Amino acid sequence: MGEANVQVNRQVVLTRLPEDRLTVDHFAVREAPMPAVGDGQVLCRTVLLSIDAANRAWMQGATYRDPITGGQVMAGFALAEVVESKAPGFAPGDVVEADAGWQEFSVHPARGLAKVAVRAPLTHHLSVLGVTGLTAYFGLLRVGQPRPGETVLVSAAAGATGNVVGQLAKRAGCRVVGVAGSPDKCAFLTESLGFDAAVSHRDENFRAALKAACPDGVDVYFDNTGGPVLEAALWRMNMHGRIVCCGVVSQYDTNAPAAGPRGVPGLLVTKRIRMEGFIVMDFFADRAAAEDDIAAAVAGGTLQAVEDVIDGLAGAPAALVGLLAGDNLGKRMVRVGPDPAGV
Amino acid sequence: MGEANVQVNRQVVLTRLPEDRLTVDHFAVREAPMPAVGDGQVLCRTVLLSIDAANRAWMQGATYRDPITGGQVMAGFALAEVVESKAPGFAPGDVVEADAGWQEFSVHPARGLAKVAVRAPLTHHLSVLGVTGLTAYFGLLRVGQPRPGETVLVSAAAGATGNVVGQLAKRAGCRVVGVAGSPDKCAFLTESLGFDAAVSHRDENFRAALKAACPDGVDVYFDNTGGPVLEAALWRMNMHGRIVCCGVVSQYDTNAPAAGPRGVPGLLVTKRIRMEGFIVMDFFADRAAAEDDIAAAVAGGTLQAVEDVIDGLAGAPAALVGLLAGDNLGKRMVRVGPDPAGV
Repeated sequence: MGEANVQVNRQVVLTRLPEDRLTVDHFAVREAPMPAVGDGQVLCRTVLLSIDAANRAWMQGATYRDPITGGQVMAGFALAEVVESKAPGFAPGDVVEADAGWQEFSVHPARGLAKVAVRAPLTHHLSVLGVTGLTAYFGLLRVGQPRPGETVLVSAAAGATGNVVGQLAKRAGCRVVGVAGSPDKCAFLTESLGFDAAVSHRDENFRAALKAACPDGVDVYFDNTGGPVLEAALWRMNMHGRIVCCGVVSQYDTNAPAAGPRGVPGLLVTKRIRMEGFIVMDFFADRAAAEDDIAAAVAGGTLQAVEDVIDGLAGAPAALVGLLAGDNLGKRMVRVGPDPAGV
Repeated sequence: MGEANVQVNRQVVLTRLPEDRLTVDHFAVREAPMPAVGDGQVLCRTVLLSIDAANRAWMQGATYRDPITGGQVMAGFALAEVVESKAPGFAPGDVVEADAGWQEFSVHPARGLAKVAVRAPLTHHLSVLGVTGLTAYFGLLRVGQPRPGETVLVSAAAGATGNVVGQLAKRAGCRVVGVAGSPDKCAFLTESLGFDAAVSHRDENFRAALKAACPDGVDVYFDNTGGPVLEAALWRMNMHGRIVCCGVVSQYDTNAPAAGPRGVPGLLVTKRIRMEGFIVMDFFADRAAAEDDIAAAVAGGTLQAVEDVIDGLAGAPAALVGLLAGDNLGKRMVRVGPDPAGV
């Protein structure tokens, strides 16, 4: 009957919302029919799936996007190749950013896609040149506003965003201290990425080690974690310090987030601290210039792309669960299919 | 022997630091000899003693000033009259701001005093025209940056700073909502000061009442309290809202401050909130212009001085203990002696 040739769309479904910690048992792989392409729509083939702590946060409720629910294809950001287009402005072979979800194929209205002007290995467009790198770039420079000679502290420093924050802060002439989850990660930060110091938050003397690593206090703290690391950082802040609130990975993998850090708002008053949250999209009007600057840093050798690529869509659940446990080094992504020809 | 004519200096001493709540039993009145005036020094007679929640915070440890310890004259800010001067620039009859402490007479180096150009009843120079009013003024306008039509929420709204914040926010064209500690205070805010709404944080349906009072959310929250009111306010903040951290009165009268508010830093990220602490002295370069603006508001009838004056130095301990319990309406002060002649 020729059915052996009917193409299917492999998908990873979030079968139910986690009540506490997320595990691979919350996911299932299924095969669905290929989606139909309507007028004004574009069919995309997923190439690289971005694995982000935010994926777990979306399961907690409304954030800057709609919450995700059980029984649906897991939501996720991806780089994809246009396979078929019934929309002006997109043609087969184009590389696009899409809210593709954890599946091989997806259909989008044209307004849901952004074309990528490929200028580097495609993985870079998810790491340093992608949303991750731009988050580090705008958060550090626009929100944190570091000045040369100041001390910049960053948590989840071996993670996707944190490692870029630290490298950009070094480039800006700052003393850079990272907080990471293991001695190996700390060694990587100081030996391979040029951090001035790194401290493991799992060290039983973490607070003392942090103090020793920041002899002049902290002027800018780029917070990816919230929780105990944020609380410890608050006590190290200098007068008129700035805390860049980027993410709260310590509180994502639970349905019962802990109380907030002691020192808020008391220390904010006595030390005149500014604490400010941001979302990278708020700065996208300046995206092209930022990408140029980041590309220059990569070309000049002051910014390395630290990437952690896992092969195969079926590995996405384990990739996310592991990321929430701190397994990744740099930007974690899942390769779902080959790069488009010519990229 | 003529000793009946020897002038003494009545003082209120903090006999020991409180371990939990402050009571009047932590204080004692004593008589000390008049202090000697050395070269470069000025002898002052206390006229009005400022009673501030910060007085209790100073007992918790270092803030923006040295901590106070047991067995010494209680620290406090005052308006005073110069009685004798051995320093250039000060003459008997001058009115000065001084860190005088809870006593009738004090001696200061000239650099510890600021001369007051009296332009209103002296009590106004502790309320609307004093540090209290300036704290409201700079905190609201410089840190909060309210725009006409926005909603401004203020806690401890019937207190010294809060009532001025609300009145200045109305003057700036904002919708103003106050949080206070009793239905009477709430009625005062809406009926006498022009607040658009007021909610008691002791109302068992406080969160629902706050939500109802802020149908368009909150753009600027001026936080005098921290604690549960701050936590409730966080959930009402609008995108790109600003939280002005002025004080933490909910956490002063204890040696075991509570954990921080839930929602920090998570809500700061998703709502792009800026939370910023300040100390009024940081803005004193612009103090004269601010005083002119405040005086114009008073003259124009858009700003009332709400004052709570208690008579006699011996009443200072009860005045402070009562203020920490929320007894005061407006700026609480203790009259220690008569206004200087000619003021």
